Amino acid sequence: MPTRVFSRYIVLVLIFVTVIAALGRDRQENLAARARQIFGPLPSVMTSAKNAITPEKTRLGKMLFYETRISADGTVSCSRCHPLSLYGADGLRKSIGVQLRISLRNAPSVLNAAAQIAEHWVGNRADVEDQAAQSLLGVPSFGLPSGASAEEKLKSIPGYADLFKAAFPSGGDPLTAENFGKAVGAFERTLVTPAPFDAFMDGDSSALNDREKNGLRTFMDGGCTGCHFSPYLGGQIYQKFGLVEEYWKFTKSDPVDGGRITVTKNDADRYFFKVPPLRNVAETSPYFHDGSVDDLSEAVRIMGKTQLGRDLAKEQIGDITAFFQSLTGKIPEDALRLPVLPSSR
Amino acid sequence: MPTRVFSRYIVLVLIFVTVIAALGRDRQENLAARARQIFGPLPSVMTSAKNAITPEKTRLGKMLFYETRISADGTVSCSRCHPLSLYGADGLRKSIGVQLRISLRNAPSVLNAAAQIAEHWVGNRADVEDQAAQSLLGVPSFGLPSGASAEEKLKSIPGYADLFKAAFPSGGDPLTAENFGKAVGAFERTLVTPAPFDAFMDGDSSALNDREKNGLRTFMDGGCTGCHFSPYLGGQIYQKFGLVEEYWKFTKSDPVDGGRITVTKNDADRYFFKVPPLRNVAETSPYFHDGSVDDLSEAVRIMGKTQLGRDLAKEQIGDITAFFQSLTGKIPEDALRLPVLPSSR
Repeated sequence: MPTRVFSRYIVLVLIFVTVIAALGRDRQENLAARARQIFGPLPSVMTSAKNAITPEKTRLGKMLFYETRISADGTVSCSRCHPLSLYGADGLRKSIGVQLRISLRNAPSVLNAAAQIAEHWVGNRADVEDQAAQSLLGVPSFGLPSGASAEEKLKSIPGYADLFKAAFPSGGDPLTAENFGKAVGAFERTLVTPAPFDAFMDGDSSALNDREKNGLRTFMDGGCTGCHFSPYLGGQIYQKFGLVEEYWKFTKSDPVDGGRITVTKNDADRYFFKVPPLRNVAETSPYFHDGSVDDLSEAVRIMGKTQLGRDLAKEQIGDITAFFQSLTGKIPEDALRLPVLPSSR
Repeated sequence: MPTRVFSRYIVLVLIFVTVIAALGRDRQENLAARARQIFGPLPSVMTSAKNAITPEKTRLGKMLFYETRISADGTVSCSRCHPLSLYGADGLRKSIGVQLRISLRNAPSVLNAAAQIAEHWVGNRADVEDQAAQSLLGVPSFGLPSGASAEEKLKSIPGYADLFKAAFPSGGDPLTAENFGKAVGAFERTLVTPAPFDAFMDGDSSALNDREKNGLRTFMDGGCTGCHFSPYLGGQIYQKFGLVEEYWKFTKSDPVDGGRITVTKNDADRYFFKVPPLRNVAETSPYFHDGSVDDLSEAVRIMGKTQLGRDLAKEQIGDITAFFQSLTGKIPEDALRLPVLPSSR
C-alpha cells in the first residue's frame, strides 16, 4: 500500500473514531441530562414547612430514635425496625414489636423517607413526624396506651427536660408526644444518602459503569419512571400493585393485602400502595409491602409482569439491578454516631 | 494596733495558711496515692493472651455486635441487651431475648467488662469471647439451635466471608461461631471508659469535687474496696451477697437466687456472685443480679447492711454516690460509630 493511500486511510479512521466518540459523549450527556430531568437533584436535607430543622432538634431526635426505655416492654425503639446499620430497615418480612406482635406490613427504610407524599405503604401517616408520634401508641410498635403515657415515661428521665426545652424553646410544656414526633422527624429529615447515581447526574460519567448505564436507560425507557420518579425514585404517588396482572400470583402473598382501600374505604383504592422510593434498594431486601420477595432480580421481574405486562429479558433485569447498585448511598457520618442517652434517674 | 505587732500578726497568719495548705495538699496527695494503690491505672484496651486485638478483628466484631439477622427471630443482636447508648446495659431488670424469653439475671454492662475473672453474675462464662459465642445458642439470647446454625446464617450474608478471612488470616475456615465470639470479644476489649476518677488518680486534684473526694475516702475507709478493687472497682472475685444479713430481706428479691452454687453445685458457693465492676454504675440502673433495686443510694445502703453490717449515714451514702458519678466515663469515639453491615445477598 503506497504511503499516501495509507495516510488517507489513517485520516479516515481518525475522523470515524472522533465522530463515534462525539456521538458517545452526546449519548452519555443525553443520558445524564434525561436522568436529571426525570429525577432531579437530591437535596442535602428534606426540609418541612411545619418542622424547622435545628441542631437542637436533630440532636434530641437522634437520642429519641434509640430510646427503648419509653416502650411498653423496654426493648423497642425506632432503631428496632429501622436500624441504620442495615440501611434503615430490619431485613424482616414484617417487623416484630412489643409482645412479639408482628407488623401489618414490611418496614420501609427510614433513609430518604421524609420527602414522600405520606408515610407507610398505604399512606396512613401524614409525614415522618406523624409516623414517629403514632408509633408510640399500641402494638406492634412501642405499645403505649396513650401519648400521655409516653410523656410520663420521658419525664421520668430527668435529662430530657432541658433537651426538649432547647429543641422547642417557644410555647408551653415542650415535653409532649407530638414534639417526640417532631424531634425524631427532624433527625429523619437529615437522613439523605447521596450515591454514585447522583455523581453521575452531576456530570461524573465514570460514576456508573456501562452495565449500570444500560440499566438506567432501560429503567427510563421501559416505563419504570412513570411511577419511580423524583430524586428518591418513588414515594410521590399511589399506584395499583398489579396494574396488568394480579400481584399475588407472582409474590405468592398470603393473605392478599387490599392496600390503600383499608385506609380510604374507597373501592378505587383497592390494591393501591404508595410507590416505594428505590434509594438503597439493593440493601433493603426483602421487597414489597409484605416482604414476600427476597431477591431483587425477582422483584424487578415481577414489576415487569404486574405493572408493565412485560417479560423483561434476563439481560434487562440484570442491567436494572446493576443500576440499582448505584443507588446505594452514604449515610451521613453524624447520623451514624450513636448518641449517649440521659441517665434513667 | 502598732504597725510592728500588726506585721508579726500577718506573718503568723501567713505561716498558718501555708501549713494548712501544705497539710491539705498532703492529704490530697495521699488520697490520690491511696486510690492509685488500691485501684491502679485503667489500661487503654483490655488485652487477652488468647485473642490478639487487631483492627480487622475489632472492625468485624463491631459489625457482629449489631448483627440481628443471625438471631432466631431476626430481632436480637448483642446490642439488644448491651446498647452502648445506655452505657452497655439495657436498663431492664432482666433482659428480654427471642420469643420474649426473659434472662435469668440482669444484663451487666459490656463496657469495661473484659477484664474480669469470668463473665456473667455467676461466672459461668470464661471470658467475653466465650460469653459472645455462647449467647448465640438457645433462649433467651439469639435462640439458635447450634453453632453450626450461626455459621450457616453468617455464610448466607456474602460480605462476611472476606471480613472473617481478614480478621482470622491463618488456619482453616475462618467463619465459625468460635470466631464470632473472638471478633465480638476483641471489639469488647476496646470498650474502656476513662472517667474523671482516672484524671484524679493521675494527679488532677480538681477532677473530683469535695463531695466526690469524701465519697472516695469513705469508700476506701469503709471496707468497700475489700471487694471493689482493681481499675474496674470490681470483677475480680466472687463474694457472698449477704455476708452479714440475708440480701433478699433488703432487695425484696423473689425468687431468691442461689448464685454461683447453680454453676459449681458446691454448697460453699451458695449466694455467691461475682463482685460487679462499678465503672458507669450511676448510668446502669437497675442494680444487683436481679435488677431488684432501681435507686443507687438504696443499693449503697443495702451493701452497707448486707456486706458490712453497718447503717451507713445518709451523708456517707450521698458522698459515695457522688463519688460514683466520677466513674461515669467516655465511651471510645470509634465504638460509638455505627457500622454499616454487609448486604443480605
